[in-house]
Formats: sequence, structure tokens, C-alpha cells
Amino acid sequence: MSQTPKEIAIIGSGLVGSLLAIYLRKAGHKVTVFDRRPDIRTVDFSGRSINLAMSNRGWRALRQVGLEEEIKKIAIPLYKRAMHVIGKEMYFQPYGKEGEAIWSISRGVLNRSMIDLAEGAGAKFRFDEKVWDVDLPNAKLYTGETEKGEWKEYDYDIVFGCDGAFSRVRHKMQRRSHFDYCQDFIDVGYKELTIPANEDGTHKLDKHSFHIWPRGRFMFIAMPNLDGSFTCTLFMPFEGEVSFENIKTKTDATEFFKKYFPNVSRDIENLIGDFFKNPTSALVTMKCYPWTYWNKVALVGDSAHAVVPFYGQGMNAGFEDIFVLNKLMDAHGDNWEQIFIEYQETRKPNADAIAELSYRNFVEMSSRTSDPKFLLQKRIEKNFAEKHPDKWIPAYSRVTFSERSYVEALAIGDVQEAIMKEVMKIPDIESKWDSAEVERKILDLLK
Amino acid sequence: MSQTPKEIAIIGSGLVGSLLAIYLRKAGHKVTVFDRRPDIRTVDFSGRSINLAMSNRGWRALRQVGLEEEIKKIAIPLYKRAMHVIGKEMYFQPYGKEGEAIWSISRGVLNRSMIDLAEGAGAKFRFDEKVWDVDLPNAKLYTGETEKGEWKEYDYDIVFGCDGAFSRVRHKMQRRSHFDYCQDFIDVGYKELTIPANEDGTHKLDKHSFHIWPRGRFMFIAMPNLDGSFTCTLFMPFEGEVSFENIKTKTDATEFFKKYFPNVSRDIENLIGDFFKNPTSALVTMKCYPWTYWNKVALVGDSAHAVVPFYGQGMNAGFEDIFVLNKLMDAHGDNWEQIFIEYQETRKPNADAIAELSYRNFVEMSSRTSDPKFLLQKRIEKNFAEKHPDKWIPAYSRVTFSERSYVEALAIGDVQEAIMKEVMKIPDIESKWDSAEVERKILDLLK
Repeated sequence: MSQTPKEIAIIGSGLVGSLLAIYLRKAGHKVTVFDRRPDIRTVDFSGRSINLAMSNRGWRALRQVGLEEEIKKIAIPLYKRAMHVIGKEMYFQPYGKEGEAIWSISRGVLNRSMIDLAEGAGAKFRFDEKVWDVDLPNAKLYTGETEKGEWKEYDYDIVFGCDGAFSRVRHKMQRRSHFDYCQDFIDVGYKELTIPANEDGTHKLDKHSFHIWPRGRFMFIAMPNLDGSFTCTLFMPFEGEVSFENIKTKTDATEFFKKYFPNVSRDIENLIGDFFKNPTSALVTMKCYPWTYWNKVALVGDSAHAVVPFYGQGMNAGFEDIFVLNKLMDAHGDNWEQIFIEYQETRKPNADAIAELSYRNFVEMSSRTSDPKFLLQKRIEKNFAEKHPDKWIPAYSRVTFSERSYVEALAIGDVQEAIMKEVMKIPDIESKWDSAEVERKILDLLK
Repeated sequence: MSQTPKEIAIIGSGLVGSLLAIYLRKAGHKVTVFDRRPDIRTVDFSGRSINLAMSNRGWRALRQVGLEEEIKKIAIPLYKRAMHVIGKEMYFQPYGKEGEAIWSISRGVLNRSMIDLAEGAGAKFRFDEKVWDVDLPNAKLYTGETEKGEWKEYDYDIVFGCDGAFSRVRHKMQRRSHFDYCQDFIDVGYKELTIPANEDGTHKLDKHSFHIWPRGRFMFIAMPNLDGSFTCTLFMPFEGEVSFENIKTKTDATEFFKKYFPNVSRDIENLIGDFFKNPTSALVTMKCYPWTYWNKVALVGDSAHAVVPFYGQGMNAGFEDIFVLNKLMDAHGDNWEQIFIEYQETRKPNADAIAELSYRNFVEMSSRTSDPKFLLQKRIEKNFAEKHPDKWIPAYSRVTFSERSYVEALAIGDVQEAIMKEVMKIPDIESKWDSAEVERKILDLLK
């Protein structure tokens, strides 16, 4: 169904804002994107980001508007995890079946590219213009230099809040009655670090792997960039024995990297330089509801649902919001009220599911990976999945390599967990974990 | 330990704000209370409140500053529930043991009295003065006519946010990183209604009872006032078959009261008048953390933890905050940082526990009270508790008539629930619920 062209404002020129601009332009609307920050194409963007892992949901949303190939040019496929475990040779864990990959993309590079594409599609961008207030029932925006200064007023038909986890648009909705809202920080923060390219521009580590140095309560990861460098992230508690708080001097940092990450210590100068230059950022799960206001305002992406990054699904979930919204625009034409109602009702349970999955992955990584029982359970699951790929698709694959709902992935994951709980009760499971008995037990429980 | 006198601001002149003012004056501090609203002693306060049920925790906090007797003069003890069930004679359920009571107090009457007492103790009140901003590290306040107008600046040593569930002080803390925050509305709202006194000033219903008309998804309650009237509250879903949304006309309302509350229909004119005059209010659970900022700012009462009213503990929990804070002031003298750290660490788990207990009571009342299995379970518990009062103190008594922690009440409640789950599995429990077998089973499970 086609739509009558509307005057639409998007707040936020990030990945979700710029992709939404492209979709709305394709549907024939007039689109203006506001951002309080300067044009990312004109500034240095490094220092506080985790590289993105684009997976099936993200690609599907790009494909729909013909951008998949264009964006694949700036992405590197990662087919496997490269595990750097202390006291062991580095080893690989394939992500999925042959050819299944997640794709490493620099957030900054992607964002620049998406803004170019949105501008090319006819969207207007107003950078350095901060929205201070939104009149929800009338879709009016108020912008200005300062909160207490003079404000400019803009009239729109529809306003989209794509302004991230600390959304100003949502903040305005939050002050209404009956708005459910929740923000939970975890006690682990992160810091961006870089491993530079070799002198000849090649990568220092295997470039088709997601590199992980798991250390229980803390963890170091590295994802490749096109220029031969790796964008790395150190996840670590803010406080405690091994923590950001406790690394105060260059000596502390040197000791820390040498002790826990010996195989990256040839780049230690660089890592330590970044460590003290880059900020330590916090990680939050944010849930809210409703996401829309009548036929006037809607939240999309992180402004509606921010998750911790341990499933690599933040951007993918945001892009999927847009994909679903677009389907509803096709189905309901000018009935924006219906579009918005179905949008929030469809997406909210899925956003809650990926939030839960992401948080559980954090708990798993930080507390369960040192538990031999847990590692044994994972080994049994893997073993079974390889023998019966039709009967046991791991939650990770459902989330990352399928387009089935997050809700389903979570529900089936729970069923699998309950089955494994029974399996782990088998007496002497340690010695017969790969026996026919265990296989039969799982098959029985799956019935 | 005595304290060096400080300049202290309290935001909010409600029950918690004024009691805290009294405590701080007793400790020798200079206290100014700000409120954006006019002095409640000068205005009509009726129309949107639920009567308060003061129980042991509240009384203990008042006793500590010598106010128990004074406040008991404006309170009416309720020794029992008066149950108005359709198709049954009204019957009583005693609350606890002989003499145990909750006390009905009008919020407005109590608040007026508390402000008088705080003023008498030397606290200053600045009404009609709205705090727009708080400089947390410097304990500075900014007040003014409008958010964008001229602001007045005040310097304090310490600021307390006692400004309720939608606290401005908390709002300011919320914008900092690492602030956990959650607000969840339930789909049930409430409306204040009144049953006036008889012409001779006596009460129309038994005045020493908490009157309840339970109707599953909705419920009507009445609590006595000193003047012979009852302050009533209608709890009901906002939307759905029987809902606020669906009572649009006087005819709708008349039918509603006649059908569901036949024994109050002699006062129907009054109830219906109130129904359309008074607002429908929402009910929210609000959790947050941290509650304090260094040695400068602390949240007390609803601003730190708002609960749904189904356990009658909102004010009691707020008063208990103050009681605990005062103990810590005694213990740590001028070390306000330590006072605030221990205050939030002690109180937060208890606030979470009473939030959970209050929410569960809502769920129980709205969905489980029509389940015969649930009613049987409650009968078994009651039976057992009467036979073994030392072995089975119901959660309600632990919360209401003891000064033991909410955390303990919740934990023991969970143990009791697990035991009852086993008991309810006994085959043919319906016919032998009061048998020696069941009693033995519970005794066994309690070991």
C-alpha cells in the first residue's frame, strides 16, 4: 500500500536514524534528520566504540533497500572465534555452518557511509542542532543553543526518536503517566583499544576471526578493520581486584597486559596509550513501554531498547525494527496509528528477549565459564548439535544466523537449558558425557 | 555520637519530609523544607489519596521522637478486616493477635499535623517554591517560578530528596552514569470516594475495621476518619470489561455500584459525585540505586522506593528509612559519607523486598482470590498458624506487626510458599485439609 508523503523528523543521525531516513525516503516522505553532534564525516570518531558485528538481521534490513553489497565492501566476514586461553595454544571455534559469518564493521566508517547514502536518497541533515523538547501530540520540535536560551520551533507530521539509549524523545514520553521504564547498569565497563596494522598494512592476527581472550570477570576482544588494524575492547569491572579502578599507572597497565594477555604484549605501548587516553564507558540495559505516541511519535533502536553488547545484536535489533516498521507501512498505508500500535506490540517482546539473552551471555561469560560443570554441559550440547543438527540449533545460531524471532530463540533456549539440567543429573556424567546413553536421554527429553 | 550542626535542605513537605525535619532538628541541624505546592494547612487536600494504615514500623519511628501519643489522637485502630463478599453476610478477619491493629489516618490530617510539629521543632518551610535543579557535588539548590526563568541559588551542606515517586532530586541523580532506575505501572488505577458520616456524626460501618469488597480484578475499600466519614478507594483496571474507561455516565456508575457493591448503595449519590469529580490515579513501583550522592545528597521515602499500596507499607517504609538513618547518625557522628553508604546498603534490599511483597499482594488479590485451590491453601495456612503460632507467622504479620526486616519477611514467605506447594500436592487434599496428616507434613517440611 502506498503512503501519502509526510513531513518527517528523525532525531539522531546514528546507524538506525540514517537507515530509517533511507527507508522513509524510499517510501516517498520528506525527511529531516537532527543531531546535536557535528557531522561524523567531519570529525575523528575513534575512542569509545565497540566494532559492530553485522549478522543476518542487519543484512536483511540493508538488502531490502539495496544496500547489502555496498556495505559488504566495508565489512570483513568472521567465520569463527579465535580463543586465546591462558596456558593453551590459540584455537578456533567456527560460528555456525560452512559459510556462516558475522561481519566486522567499524561503527564510524559505517555511520559515515550510511549518512552519505541517506543524503544521496534525499534526506536532509541538520547537525549541531540539539532538540530540547518535543510536543508529542503535535509532533513539534524545539531546538536551540542551550536549554534555557531561545528555541526554534519546527512542525512535523511524525517524529522518530533514534537518539540512542539516553534518548531525549523518550525522556519526554517518560514524563507521562503509565510509561514503564527501566535502566540497569552492569558492574562491568569497557574501553576501546587498538592493535595497529603491520607495517605492510596486513593484520597482526587472523583477520577472519573474532578474537577473544576470556578471563572470567574480565575479557579482551579484537575485531578487524579494513586498514589492517584491530579495534579491541577491554571489558572489566569498574571496581574490585582486577578492575579499571585498580589500574592507575603505566606500570599497573603494563603488568596487567603482560600477565593476562601475553600474546598481545608486543603492542603494549599502543594498548597502554589508548588505555589512558580513551574513556571507560558504562553498559546499560534499558527497557521501556510504550514506544509510540498515537500516530505522531515513535522510538526506534536503542532509544526503545538498549542491550548489553554480549550478543552482538544491538544494531541488528535496531535495523530489524526498521524492517518490521517498513512491512507495516506497506500493510497499513496511511494508517500510522495502526502501524505504530503493531510496531510496538510486535517488537517489544522481541526487544525484551534479546535484552535477556544479551544479559545472560554476560553472566555466563563472567561467572560460568570457569565452572567445569558448565563447560562440560556446553561440550555435551555441541556434541549433540553436531550429530543432530536438525534437532538442536544452539540459541546463538538462532539469534545470529536466522531471521526467526528473538522470542522464539529465548523460549527454545529455555527448553534446551531445562533438558541439559536433567542431563547433568545423570550419575557419573563426567565419564560418559559422549555416550549413547546421554544421546538417548536428550532425544527422549526432546520428544 | 553527637553531630556538628549542618545547614540541611529537605525537598518535599510530605509525611517523610516533615518527619525527617523533626529528626534532624532533634539532632541539632538547621533545617529548611522546600515544597513546590502551597502549605497543605491552607488548602483543601481531599480527592486523590488513599487513607494511611500506620503499623508497627511507622509507630516506632514516631515513638523515637516522642510523637506516638500525639499522632494516635488522630488515628483509629483497625483490629480486623470486614469482608463484604457478594452472596455472603459481612464477616470479620482479625489482623493478628489480640490487640494488634493497623491505624487508619487521613493523609491530609496527618500531614498538616506533622508540619505543625516540624515547625514547632524549629524547621523552616518554604512553600510554593519549586526546585528546578540540584548541583549534587555542592549541595546547591536552584528554585524559580519557571524552568526557563530566573533562578534563585541556595547553598547547603546536605540535601534530602523527600519529593516522592516522581522526585526532582532523583531525576537529577538519574542523569548520571551508573544510576539504576525502574518504574513499572500496573494496569489498575484508583479513585478516592467518600462515604459520609451519619447525621449524628457516627460511622455508617464498623469503625474499627478495614472494609474490603474484593471483586477479583477490582476492589473497593473503606477506612474510617475521625469525623465519622470513610475514605474509600476504588481499585480497578483502566481498560477492559469492568474498568474506569467503561464507566462513562452516571447511569453506568449507578449500575456498577448497585451490581457490585449493593450494601453501599444508600450512599450512591455521594459515591457517584466523587467518581466523576475525583481524578483516576495510576499506581507505580519505582526502584532505583544508588540513593545517595557522596556525603551531600540522599533520597528518603517514595523518592527512593515507591511501592503499590496493597500492603499498606508505603509510609511505614519511608518512616523506617528515617529511623535507620537516625541510628546511623548516632553511630557515625559527622561521617556523613559512611552514614549515607550504610543507609542505602541497609535499606535498599528491604525496599526491594517490600516492593515485591506489595506487588505480589496485588497479583494475589486480582487473580488468585477466585481460585479455590488458593483459598484452600490460605485456609490450611491459617489453620496451621493458629495451632502453631510459634512455627508459622504469616508474612502479613511479619510485615505489619513486627520490626524484623522486610527481607526476612519475604524470605520466610518464600519458604512457606514452597512448603505449601508440597502440601497442596497431597492427593485428595480438599477432603483432608485439616487432618493430622497435613499438619504432620507441614511440621516435617519445616524441619
